[in-house]
Amino acid sequence: MKNKSYPCRLGLLGGGQLGRMLLPEMAKLAIEVHILDPDAQAPCQPLCANFVQGSLTAFDDVYAFGQGKDIITVEIENVNTEALAKLEAEGVSVYPQPRVLAIIQDKCLQKQFYKDNGIPTADFILTSTRADLATNTHLFPAVHKLGKAGYDGRGVQKINNASEITLGFDVPSVLEQLIDFEQEISIIVARNPQGEIALFPPVAQVLDPIHNLVDYLFAPAPLHGSMLAEANRIATDIITRLDMVGLLAVELFITKNGQVLVNEVAPRPHNSGHHTIEANVTSQFEQHLRAILGYPLGKTDTLQPAAMVNLLGESGYTGKAIYEGLPEILATKGVYAHLYGKTETKPQRKMGHITVVTAPENIYWQQELEQVIDKIKKTVKIIA
Amino acid sequence: MKNKSYPCRLGLLGGGQLGRMLLPEMAKLAIEVHILDPDAQAPCQPLCANFVQGSLTAFDDVYAFGQGKDIITVEIENVNTEALAKLEAEGVSVYPQPRVLAIIQDKCLQKQFYKDNGIPTADFILTSTRADLATNTHLFPAVHKLGKAGYDGRGVQKINNASEITLGFDVPSVLEQLIDFEQEISIIVARNPQGEIALFPPVAQVLDPIHNLVDYLFAPAPLHGSMLAEANRIATDIITRLDMVGLLAVELFITKNGQVLVNEVAPRPHNSGHHTIEANVTSQFEQHLRAILGYPLGKTDTLQPAAMVNLLGESGYTGKAIYEGLPEILATKGVYAHLYGKTETKPQRKMGHITVVTAPENIYWQQELEQVIDKIKKTVKIIA
Repeated sequence: MKNKSYPCRLGLLGGGQLGRMLLPEMAKLAIEVHILDPDAQAPCQPLCANFVQGSLTAFDDVYAFGQGKDIITVEIENVNTEALAKLEAEGVSVYPQPRVLAIIQDKCLQKQFYKDNGIPTADFILTSTRADLATNTHLFPAVHKLGKAGYDGRGVQKINNASEITLGFDVPSVLEQLIDFEQEISIIVARNPQGEIALFPPVAQVLDPIHNLVDYLFAPAPLHGSMLAEANRIATDIITRLDMVGLLAVELFITKNGQVLVNEVAPRPHNSGHHTIEANVTSQFEQHLRAILGYPLGKTDTLQPAAMVNLLGESGYTGKAIYEGLPEILATKGVYAHLYGKTETKPQRKMGHITVVTAPENIYWQQELEQVIDKIKKTVKIIA
Repeated sequence: MKNKSYPCRLGLLGGGQLGRMLLPEMAKLAIEVHILDPDAQAPCQPLCANFVQGSLTAFDDVYAFGQGKDIITVEIENVNTEALAKLEAEGVSVYPQPRVLAIIQDKCLQKQFYKDNGIPTADFILTSTRADLATNTHLFPAVHKLGKAGYDGRGVQKINNASEITLGFDVPSVLEQLIDFEQEISIIVARNPQGEIALFPPVAQVLDPIHNLVDYLFAPAPLHGSMLAEANRIATDIITRLDMVGLLAVELFITKNGQVLVNEVAPRPHNSGHHTIEANVTSQFEQHLRAILGYPLGKTDTLQPAAMVNLLGESGYTGKAIYEGLPEILATKGVYAHLYGKTETKPQRKMGHITVVTAPENIYWQQELEQVIDKIKKTVKIIA
């Protein structure tokens, strides 16, 4: 391993909240950061003197931005991979690799990758047109997912039976058997160019039944030993077979009969890893950076059990954000607020998150964290 | 207490490493930060879209910078307090208060404040000219300190006996009896406008005998109960009698006969509190912010014992910084690197720091931390 570290010039595609949490870790390693984002008021803009406004999906914007950088990384997977591949061919380190981003950003390629590599996932078929659904009714009830550009519930449609086929997509998509899962967990795994791999302890997700977004999560997820081993095996298998460098968030279903199936992956820091800032020896953001820079990966041990709740814009309010109830919450021990600095709030917009930690020796940690999460949800409102 | 938090516009005087570590905490609370610093390449510049180059001591620069801000704070005490007082009179919240900064930035006023308020400190006299030393030889061996603008060993002169009087300063200064101390500790205390006070556990400083800078520190300092109580009493007394809002680092001597004396104070985050980022429930940077914003103060409990070593520019090297030995150190569990992003290194320049933490149940924590600190000092070199 090289022993000398020179300050490097890093280009980050995407200037959202994930980038905003990456920035302090990049600062700690004296990295010169440049950011590209289409939104002039992106969460990273105030915190980066080298902020460039431009499209993440346009070849020319991404290619021009990449010139003169030592390394390029992403905080969002929906970027122009052709431009990144050209930059990579010209000698710029691009991690995660453009080849990996291309697979993950297309749900059709992603699912086919699992199948080709024997990675357990829900049964599926690839569909080109809506008509393909009619010949695959054995998969119903199913979920129809757009191959490209689906995000946070957009481009995902539940199809319960043949009468609902008209709700499906008429462009390349995945039709996937609906999994009646017991639990949804996430495992974040990192891999550096030397092939070193490190896994974070699993995180349990509790979904909000109305908005289909993560309501809150807690970590470490209480998981049966054999299922934990299987989940870790799958996460390791995916990042290894992708031959990927960087951080991969692996969302997994634990079915009612104890099977572990991959749902989907994200090649970057992830909402399900925010608690690692306070709760783990190394945060997911530092780990992402260590992986792409070729540094030894950090230890991932849990220091304190944690829960994390997203702060969403309150229904009925659109405009300049006002944070209600913050002082009351900050007075509670073990509570850490992270606001993303988005100027405008709108209903259900992710405006921040709050992490709660408790003492590791507390055997009632899950109940205690849940109580604080309840209090936060009742107290903190983001209005306008 | 107000329940609604509006995003606020904050002006920070000084853009050095302390500001650089304040920035992520300000981001977490969605604060709009503007920074004033004379150096266009100050550590904060790359991390702040609203960076203004200008003098911190010139009335016009500080006054102009303060216009339109909701709140102003500092990361260095040597600032123009007249401009701040005018801004305060015009309705800007300035914390710490200009009145407090004026006392602390002048060592003569600071020492006189201790005397007037019965706060135990080394015997001293105020000197106007070098001739005043000859009539106060009973204080020898003594330390002569410039009233204004002394920093990091500059403006501090040891006077062992009458033959060395010519080494003294011929401008307003403090002549202070040299304290033969057993231990030097630091206590960081915070106070918000509501009068709430919170003390961090004490930190023990180990000084480098050659450069007279902190070599490394460890926390919590192993202190006899009665001395800890006295140190806490003194720190609380100082911040209360100053009627100060903000964070105050109180450096204290523990004499060989167990007396606790204040050495000096700094009205801002301090080198002796860097370990709180990883080691305490709330970091000194978050605490500073909570105090000046009028939020409830954070808990200061130690999560993990810690040691902190400054990374100084290696002797014999001046120029663009290269960090040697970083990967090796990052592979060590419990090690957290913080580089300040200063482009140029020069001998003994503070280029960063490394914090080491260990498990709280480890009874040999001091020895273990010392071993890792030794390894860091042998491994990490900042060269050019």
